[in-house]
Amino acid sequence: MAEFKQGLEGVVAGETAICTVGAEGSDLRYRGYSIKDIPPDTSFEQIAYLLLHGELPSSSQLEQFSADIHQASSLPVPVSEALRSLPVDTHPMDVLRTGTSMLGCFVPHDSAGDMESLVQLLGTLPSMLLTWHLHCQGRTLGELTEPTIAGRFLEGLLGTVPDDETRQMMEVSLILYAEHEFNASTFAARITTATLSDIHSAICSAIGTLKGSLHGGANEAAMEMILPLQDEEEADLFIRDALANKVKIMGFGHRVYKISDPRSDIVKKLSRRASERCGDMRYFDISQRIETILREEKGLFPNLDFYSATLYYMLGIPIPMYTPLFVFSRVAGWGAHIMEQRANNRLIRPSAHYTGPEARDWINLDKRP
Amino acid sequence: MAEFKQGLEGVVAGETAICTVGAEGSDLRYRGYSIKDIPPDTSFEQIAYLLLHGELPSSSQLEQFSADIHQASSLPVPVSEALRSLPVDTHPMDVLRTGTSMLGCFVPHDSAGDMESLVQLLGTLPSMLLTWHLHCQGRTLGELTEPTIAGRFLEGLLGTVPDDETRQMMEVSLILYAEHEFNASTFAARITTATLSDIHSAICSAIGTLKGSLHGGANEAAMEMILPLQDEEEADLFIRDALANKVKIMGFGHRVYKISDPRSDIVKKLSRRASERCGDMRYFDISQRIETILREEKGLFPNLDFYSATLYYMLGIPIPMYTPLFVFSRVAGWGAHIMEQRANNRLIRPSAHYTGPEARDWINLDKRP
Repeated sequence: MAEFKQGLEGVVAGETAICTVGAEGSDLRYRGYSIKDIPPDTSFEQIAYLLLHGELPSSSQLEQFSADIHQASSLPVPVSEALRSLPVDTHPMDVLRTGTSMLGCFVPHDSAGDMESLVQLLGTLPSMLLTWHLHCQGRTLGELTEPTIAGRFLEGLLGTVPDDETRQMMEVSLILYAEHEFNASTFAARITTATLSDIHSAICSAIGTLKGSLHGGANEAAMEMILPLQDEEEADLFIRDALANKVKIMGFGHRVYKISDPRSDIVKKLSRRASERCGDMRYFDISQRIETILREEKGLFPNLDFYSATLYYMLGIPIPMYTPLFVFSRVAGWGAHIMEQRANNRLIRPSAHYTGPEARDWINLDKRP
Repeated sequence: MAEFKQGLEGVVAGETAICTVGAEGSDLRYRGYSIKDIPPDTSFEQIAYLLLHGELPSSSQLEQFSADIHQASSLPVPVSEALRSLPVDTHPMDVLRTGTSMLGCFVPHDSAGDMESLVQLLGTLPSMLLTWHLHCQGRTLGELTEPTIAGRFLEGLLGTVPDDETRQMMEVSLILYAEHEFNASTFAARITTATLSDIHSAICSAIGTLKGSLHGGANEAAMEMILPLQDEEEADLFIRDALANKVKIMGFGHRVYKISDPRSDIVKKLSRRASERCGDMRYFDISQRIETILREEKGLFPNLDFYSATLYYMLGIPIPMYTPLFVFSRVAGWGAHIMEQRANNRLIRPSAHYTGPEARDWINLDKRP
């Protein structure tokens, strides 16, 4: 039998200059910059620019980039209309995948325009979700005034300009989700790109791949698990029972990090702070208890998704929007990988080990049992 | 530097029981049955059933399966409306990707329903293309009466019931495109599935990946190359010039087949026959000349896409529909792989070799040049 690694674990599938994950055990660097060094008042746009252009923006470059994204945030009318025709119970990731796919039909495709398309996607992805969500509530998405993606999303969702600390927590969250090497959704985007397909196709592949609960869906799954738990004691019983029954706990462990996820420390602080501001520590305390048990019993550490769940909950974000928020951010990383793949392209086409029936003779329809 | 195979060439990425490609040099077997043994009067539905269920259908199973697909071929009204709102110059693959994505919003998702969703996609994918295409021409897609996908597509496109030989050539063409192991689009569908995402997400990834000219787009690229050539002599000059300038000729060679593509022999006969029926051998003769030169000069053989181009042209199919036809067929193979991936799932997440900047210190915005 042919030797192979299940799920391509540890298999090097290509080269990248965009980020390193766990190169020093538990670190994450975007284009060489450690996420631990990014000041807490940094806008997500700075990091999106860094990922897409390779270098940090100057003040004037950042201003232009942020303004371009803001300007590009409105949708073609037929796309808005199609999104408003989607059922109320549509999965928000399906809304984004459909909006992106349809937007691609209204944009002329040539690879010179990738950066322009990415700026438009950075601007329009939140508009897609808000257009559909507000329509479901009988509301309409009006003009948004906030200068950043994080601010505009909160403004559109909550119907009011967010306070500075809330907006900044959202900026940091988007920064942490922006890029993560050859994760499944990014790898899917590179495979799509490698056949010389267009950027909207590649982003659709990425959104659909991120949707799964073993990837982006983990933050939603974590909150769904935490929400019904009344207190730490109940959490304790629940988790020990889950472990005894070998139920997978979402938001823990990681394919690449072996010691800890450096993003978790940062988002845990935000989760605590957001809970304090709401004067409600219940879900944070429950989360901490779950973290302790999994660390002690299984040696598992929380990944970014686990405390993102309670952070978003305390910021008032509906649970089904947690993975879409991941999209608003990761589209920067996906875009950088798509352009990198194009610059040095090779079709990505592996082989398979065959385990099916031996060669057999055809049986005509009238001779079959 | 970490060792790796560019484009995962020759890397075994998993197991499959669905087909073998080139196991005996230049053969293709679906579930153990050689494509060379499939009788020319077989319907595509027989092969779709074989791929999805693992065994050939009995007469009654085939009848039920074909009827289910026919019955499932109408679209939800909002999907038809959205497709009709797409621009006239939309790429037809973008129409299918958008239609599939939006259809997924109207279907409740649970993995038990994968087979049902696949039957619906087999039925609706041609409806999506025809709805948009006919609308662009000021026509409406009416009730179609043909009992198979191939027949209904021709009936809808040409506005009349096709003759038996035409329909049968289309059946064989769909059969040849139905499945091909871990090709790029199928592998993309498996990556999407492996995060535990849904089937419409996986099919969207596959459609977007197939669109590229290094994959499904090759048959269109081949016809675009052949079309302006006046005769064999001009073809001769053109190809020798292209070779001298290292221009890639679409429709030749293959990542997996090293001797020849067994599908090419079959489709070449159909291409010749369709040209004879039209009383116009020009493009067939040009194609043969191109084949001869590439074989002699570069040792390259035509793959399925090369003679599919002239076959479709002589059947009166508009060039931008060649890759969509590939979709109508390959969705059977994709579906079989999606269900196979689910049955024995592992997240597909490779690693990357880092070639970017060394670790560097953050520079605050006001300190940047």
